[in-house]
Amino acid sequence: MPKAPIVTPQAEDFPRWYQDVVAKAEMADNGPVRGTMVILPWGYAIWELMQAKMDARIKATGTRNCYFPMFIPEGYLRREAEHVEGFAPELAVVTHGGGKKLDEPVVVRPTSETIINTYFAKWVQSYRDLPVLINQWANVVRWELRPRLFLRTTEFLWQEGHTCHATEGDARDFAARILHDVYAEFMTNVLAMPVLPGRKTARERFPGATNTLTCEAVMADGKALQMGTSHELGQNVAKAFGTQFSTEAGGLEHTWQTSWGSSTRMVGGLIMCHGDDAGLRLPPAVAPAQVVVLLVKPENGAAEAATALTRELRTAGVRVELDDRVDTSFGRRAVDWELKGAPVRIEVGPRDIAGGQVSVVRRDTRAKETVALASVVAQIPSLLDAIQADMLAAATAARDARIVDVDSVEDAASASETGLAGVPWSTLRADDGEERLRQLGITVRCLRRADGGLPDSEDEPGVVALVGRAY
Amino acid sequence: MPKAPIVTPQAEDFPRWYQDVVAKAEMADNGPVRGTMVILPWGYAIWELMQAKMDARIKATGTRNCYFPMFIPEGYLRREAEHVEGFAPELAVVTHGGGKKLDEPVVVRPTSETIINTYFAKWVQSYRDLPVLINQWANVVRWELRPRLFLRTTEFLWQEGHTCHATEGDARDFAARILHDVYAEFMTNVLAMPVLPGRKTARERFPGATNTLTCEAVMADGKALQMGTSHELGQNVAKAFGTQFSTEAGGLEHTWQTSWGSSTRMVGGLIMCHGDDAGLRLPPAVAPAQVVVLLVKPENGAAEAATALTRELRTAGVRVELDDRVDTSFGRRAVDWELKGAPVRIEVGPRDIAGGQVSVVRRDTRAKETVALASVVAQIPSLLDAIQADMLAAATAARDARIVDVDSVEDAASASETGLAGVPWSTLRADDGEERLRQLGITVRCLRRADGGLPDSEDEPGVVALVGRAY
Repeated sequence: MPKAPIVTPQAEDFPRWYQDVVAKAEMADNGPVRGTMVILPWGYAIWELMQAKMDARIKATGTRNCYFPMFIPEGYLRREAEHVEGFAPELAVVTHGGGKKLDEPVVVRPTSETIINTYFAKWVQSYRDLPVLINQWANVVRWELRPRLFLRTTEFLWQEGHTCHATEGDARDFAARILHDVYAEFMTNVLAMPVLPGRKTARERFPGATNTLTCEAVMADGKALQMGTSHELGQNVAKAFGTQFSTEAGGLEHTWQTSWGSSTRMVGGLIMCHGDDAGLRLPPAVAPAQVVVLLVKPENGAAEAATALTRELRTAGVRVELDDRVDTSFGRRAVDWELKGAPVRIEVGPRDIAGGQVSVVRRDTRAKETVALASVVAQIPSLLDAIQADMLAAATAARDARIVDVDSVEDAASASETGLAGVPWSTLRADDGEERLRQLGITVRCLRRADGGLPDSEDEPGVVALVGRAY
Repeated sequence: MPKAPIVTPQAEDFPRWYQDVVAKAEMADNGPVRGTMVILPWGYAIWELMQAKMDARIKATGTRNCYFPMFIPEGYLRREAEHVEGFAPELAVVTHGGGKKLDEPVVVRPTSETIINTYFAKWVQSYRDLPVLINQWANVVRWELRPRLFLRTTEFLWQEGHTCHATEGDARDFAARILHDVYAEFMTNVLAMPVLPGRKTARERFPGATNTLTCEAVMADGKALQMGTSHELGQNVAKAFGTQFSTEAGGLEHTWQTSWGSSTRMVGGLIMCHGDDAGLRLPPAVAPAQVVVLLVKPENGAAEAATALTRELRTAGVRVELDDRVDTSFGRRAVDWELKGAPVRIEVGPRDIAGGQVSVVRRDTRAKETVALASVVAQIPSLLDAIQADMLAAATAARDARIVDVDSVEDAASASETGLAGVPWSTLRADDGEERLRQLGITVRCLRRADGGLPDSEDEPGVVALVGRAY
């Protein structure tokens, strides 16, 4: 009798595969209020690693973290008309507090744009105060009618950066720096996800932005996922909130601003980029356990060897977990660690130890090799580096295989059934293509130069539109 | 004309001094919704350091972090009668979401007790599942009518731990371990605050707990501040939520539980324990800038020397900031860094450099000494260690000077005007002393053995009650 698959195969039902992996890898569970999510210890440990590495990159730009209240007076959201239109249907409203009906209802932040800009108007007086570079890690709420764990949840965790600059050029440079040096660099080198940085079309822009930059990733089912966005806000927000500074020449000007965000949605992207039919595959950089030492049976000194090996790996700076639950079958435990995506499994059994060796199994390729016990600790760090690099290379090849270049709206639509299509932006524009694709549920994910660079504007010749279905 | 003080002197008006320091050290500001707080970059950077060091200690106990939704169905809070009585007047209630009135209102978590226990009931089946050791870092809301930045805010940041155990002894040991190895150890050795661990009286216990342990600190005005609590919940919570496990012997039992929390309130404690009339004094362990290199004037190579010194200190692992804003007066900048509490200031000016030396100023003692430029980098790490140790010693001496031993309710009441009083618990009990003191606004902060140990019960002979006014 064939064994039932651990998770629904991707080819059979991709959304179901995703749900199965999230559940069986113990990443997250549904919360009691519709659309909310419990992030379980394994999922949260991945998020903590992602957060720490993203945070270091944000701080390297000179940005400082702070914390703004999650309760925002309802009136604040009316200050910027475009902004409130974008968010009104998604808001959670607190009408009662401290046992009484509130005089003015309070909104739970869908983003902190309005509250942060209220303070920017107080903080910024002179060109000497600029730039102001602020970030916060927080929970936000956008009421979600079709929730999906990590990808679309009513409450999610994110970072949101907000900055003020003296000139349009400074703001533009900063928005691009966040896109490239923080987001794309982190996603590529930490998450091993070869994201495609680009520019959103006017239709796909963030409400109130003059330009939205994005990092798009291609999932294993060929759909795109927006992993992070960086917005140039021009002077729109400063004008709405009255944020002005006296210039060095003695004038008075509104600040030029940016905002940018990335969220727990990236965890969903990580799963759908790297996962396979055995479960999750984690790049070592964000694996809570980079190595699992799996004790097969405790006899003949195997237990002691496994414990010593774990300790030595930890001393060598490896995140390692010892699995010595020998009352559970070896096979069951091996499957569990494959589901959870730990990059390396070291199997230590009595027979291995008798031969002075252990078995080392890579999760990404599932390749297994025998290594001398005496040299395994020394080999692991470079093996982890190799896995990180190989996972990026494999994801890059898979991504490239899912993008085809086409020359017409029709071909773009049919290519979107299985992946993304690169189509000349001029072709889409001439044929009202963006709207025609949109009616088919296909969107322009981003505009890029032929060499992958950021176009200065939509009108630049030679711009390529990357189109597809998206999460 | 005498200079106006930078902050209101402590002796003149302590609450005003506190407000001044919070504002002028740029720690926090009021949010637009009453009782909420904006944590500014300097204050938030301190919190991040505190969080990282507390988190490492929590993880060392085997506890794993996770994240539960902040929205809790209102019905959940009714499951445990005592619990809802304790929190009902403080709740924020969401009645509208996604543009509609909700069928069931949703509460913003005042603590995650009810939602986490709903999942514990699902997770725990067998003795093999125990212990379950969970922690989360999150924002919580308790509507606050008399807010005070950091000390009492409607929304605050905290960690809350929740654990399930197989026996009463395991739960008791774990609650005590959190109190001693996590809270008291962190507060003493990281915050340099010599907290007093003890046991709450039945009256002061957390609703639903069978025993509440606390770390109490003594502030510079003689009032006590509860810095963190660890609760034994017995089987009360498990019975309310139906969390049962099959024992090894084949029976069915309710789990024995603990919960424990500490919050941004600790930042307020840090300010009121160490601050002086020049502002904040930060222990090096939580100082975002442990050393500030203050460039006096850029001439004669001073600018280059300051830059090089900053780089070398950073390489040596010191958190260092270069202040080269020479368009602001040296005096103004020195005062600013004293306000912010940076532990060490290194002054680098043209004259110093000509002599091959710099001035090193300690914030805690304000002692200034001249050090050879060539050896300053090597000396800083041990100087920071000395400051950390000296601040703890000074705070311990100050604490001890504010506690007097007395023998009657009357003397306890009068001692509470200036500090805490240690009074035999048997004396208070005999005279209905806890209630009489309470009518004067004085509470029993904790019960301790004469040697400072934790009493096993209120009835243990020789127990000392520490009483006083509290934040």
